[in-house]
Amino acid sequence: MITKTVEETIEKILSNTQVKEGLEFIKLENERTVAEQMELTAIPAPTFQEEARGEVYKTRLLELGLADVSVDNSGNIFGVRRGTGNGPKLVVSAHLDTVFPEGTNVEPQRKDGKIFAPGIADDGRGLAVVLTLVRALDEANIQTKADIIFCATVGEEGLGDLRGVKALFQNRKDIDGFISIEPGNPERTTYLATGSHRYHVTFLGPGGHSFGDFGKPSAIHALGRAIAKISELKVPDNPKTTFTVGTINGGTSVNTIAQNANMLVDIRSTSQDELSKLEEQIIASIKQAAIEENKRWNTDSINVELELVGDRPAGSQAPDAVIVQTALAATKALGFEPILDNPSSTDSNVPISLGIPAVTLGGGGDFGGVHTLNEFFDPKEAYYGVQKIFLTVLGLAGVQEVSEPLLPKRQG
Amino acid sequence: MITKTVEETIEKILSNTQVKEGLEFIKLENERTVAEQMELTAIPAPTFQEEARGEVYKTRLLELGLADVSVDNSGNIFGVRRGTGNGPKLVVSAHLDTVFPEGTNVEPQRKDGKIFAPGIADDGRGLAVVLTLVRALDEANIQTKADIIFCATVGEEGLGDLRGVKALFQNRKDIDGFISIEPGNPERTTYLATGSHRYHVTFLGPGGHSFGDFGKPSAIHALGRAIAKISELKVPDNPKTTFTVGTINGGTSVNTIAQNANMLVDIRSTSQDELSKLEEQIIASIKQAAIEENKRWNTDSINVELELVGDRPAGSQAPDAVIVQTALAATKALGFEPILDNPSSTDSNVPISLGIPAVTLGGGGDFGGVHTLNEFFDPKEAYYGVQKIFLTVLGLAGVQEVSEPLLPKRQG
Repeated sequence: MITKTVEETIEKILSNTQVKEGLEFIKLENERTVAEQMELTAIPAPTFQEEARGEVYKTRLLELGLADVSVDNSGNIFGVRRGTGNGPKLVVSAHLDTVFPEGTNVEPQRKDGKIFAPGIADDGRGLAVVLTLVRALDEANIQTKADIIFCATVGEEGLGDLRGVKALFQNRKDIDGFISIEPGNPERTTYLATGSHRYHVTFLGPGGHSFGDFGKPSAIHALGRAIAKISELKVPDNPKTTFTVGTINGGTSVNTIAQNANMLVDIRSTSQDELSKLEEQIIASIKQAAIEENKRWNTDSINVELELVGDRPAGSQAPDAVIVQTALAATKALGFEPILDNPSSTDSNVPISLGIPAVTLGGGGDFGGVHTLNEFFDPKEAYYGVQKIFLTVLGLAGVQEVSEPLLPKRQG
Repeated sequence: MITKTVEETIEKILSNTQVKEGLEFIKLENERTVAEQMELTAIPAPTFQEEARGEVYKTRLLELGLADVSVDNSGNIFGVRRGTGNGPKLVVSAHLDTVFPEGTNVEPQRKDGKIFAPGIADDGRGLAVVLTLVRALDEANIQTKADIIFCATVGEEGLGDLRGVKALFQNRKDIDGFISIEPGNPERTTYLATGSHRYHVTFLGPGGHSFGDFGKPSAIHALGRAIAKISELKVPDNPKTTFTVGTINGGTSVNTIAQNANMLVDIRSTSQDELSKLEEQIIASIKQAAIEENKRWNTDSINVELELVGDRPAGSQAPDAVIVQTALAATKALGFEPILDNPSSTDSNVPISLGIPAVTLGGGGDFGGVHTLNEFFDPKEAYYGVQKIFLTVLGLAGVQEVSEPLLPKRQG
């Protein structure tokens, strides 16, 4: 399953003394990584309000002695660990923002060996792991061939709509590979990007009294027609493509012909083509519903407004892509059974959709209650996640006097 | 248009000196009626919480010297003005309750000749008019042949679902005719009862993540299918029959397959048969929608629950029914152009649905903003409404030494 070249490269790297020192350091640093994870999690960082956490993160990158520490126009934080020159450019990234609104108590609490705090796993873990990776490279005195751009992005969650990573790839055309660190165990490697488009749809009508004004069209009836059509749409199993009307709301009282009805529609696919195809069908269904409700009552007073409120690009790459293979080989080299994970929606969506090699890897440790107030992280043996990422990074970046970068430089 | 017997009877009554005194008294009492209307309106009486206003009303009926002043099991207030004996029994009624919840400021304010207060017209006006009618009969020393049962009902509004008047006709089988007084001008006579059934419909499903659990059925999709079917139903223009899905609500987030979706459905008709027929079609549509959503995903995990939350009986009577004719003749005798009003939903629904003669008459005066916090009443020439009802009552009840009751006694 894993290509020979990649497997041999990872084995060669793993047998190197400095690399072994680095892996041992990561294990010994387990508690320090967790302590840093707690410190960063305690700084509120709702999507669109990542600045305070970002400032602290920037200070950490400066303290670690990285080059070109900077904040871009969207609020992403960067620091570069330079390679030997002329190598590829690899981004290793976690996201600053959490789904929790301003005012949420995000102070971590230890209980029965676990740490409880909203955001402690997603993505407090990832942010801390990025810093430990830099320390491990420094501690083991490892010189990579690639430039490694360590990064913390904004706007990964919800309505943030991946705005940080979108800005990154809009601003720079020289990135050759991308690793995003999210909550997850070391076995799994995510390499398929679920794209999503989300619409807020509002039907508007004239309203009126249910009896006295009977014969006027209803915004709710039009919405119902749209949902009925959407619920009959057919989508492929592979590439996996899905839809749902997630929420509905409308009307003012039982005996009023509804003036207003709205819904949120979620459209997802691992294929941008299928996403677009399904999106077209859904938009056509919605418009047709307005036409049919108007026709039923011989009017033209029902209107519909569509607002795109979410746009995450889809993308896929072959499981034998070198970045995927490298992650799988690193997993196996550490004694785990590699698993290709289900498609998901993370910062990696953007590079994958652009054809740039990217994977999302788990930062290790047990965790649960992600996106709830009961979110927790269990630090027991969490270092395995960091070790896997460390090995993956070294495989892709190339180690001086040990290996060439597995990650190719982009053409042209 | 108006039958000769009825017209002649009303003319005969109108030419009687005592009756003329009564009509004049009503005109002179205009301000007193309005003062009483304000006093009663100032006592909060949300549907199901009519007791305080009912207690005051009972005291008024006692002070007026009516017989058999009583409160029934539902909270309706009654007082009887006895006839000469062996005549029919006529109820003259207004409703105690308002649509305004506890805590609403219902203190009337005069401004530019108008009186502003929630409930001042609906049905503060009706309650005051009932008392003025008793006073006018007493003042003019008029002896009717029929027993007149003056009444204030509970639960006319909204979810009260006509519970007061339903209780009255469940408790008593000896009522021969019924007049309900609501906001309205003297020209109009309401004689057709819009029946309504209202359902709270809840679709329940398993829920799940929009992408990870795609293939599970959606409560919202099932609801949409139901609405689409309902929106295509055909109903007769005459008897007027209507439907609307008034409100919808469902789902938890854009990327969650909805576990719950609900709607309120309003079904109305002036014919109980058409009401039942339409209701059957709507219930079938709702059940079919659940079946289709289950079939689409090859499951049986969508369920639907229907709760009847409103039940007002429909009914109609011929425009040449004697109670309708009497009201029209009284209107004409006072110099107004009689208008047969559109069907509506009032306390009269219950007797009409039982085949008992009933009309709903306007208490006079200008008014607006009914069921809003800006409700107002303009007392200018409001006495015309009272005079019309006074004449109608006398026509139906018969006046000693002047006329026989136009209202027949019930058979058996």
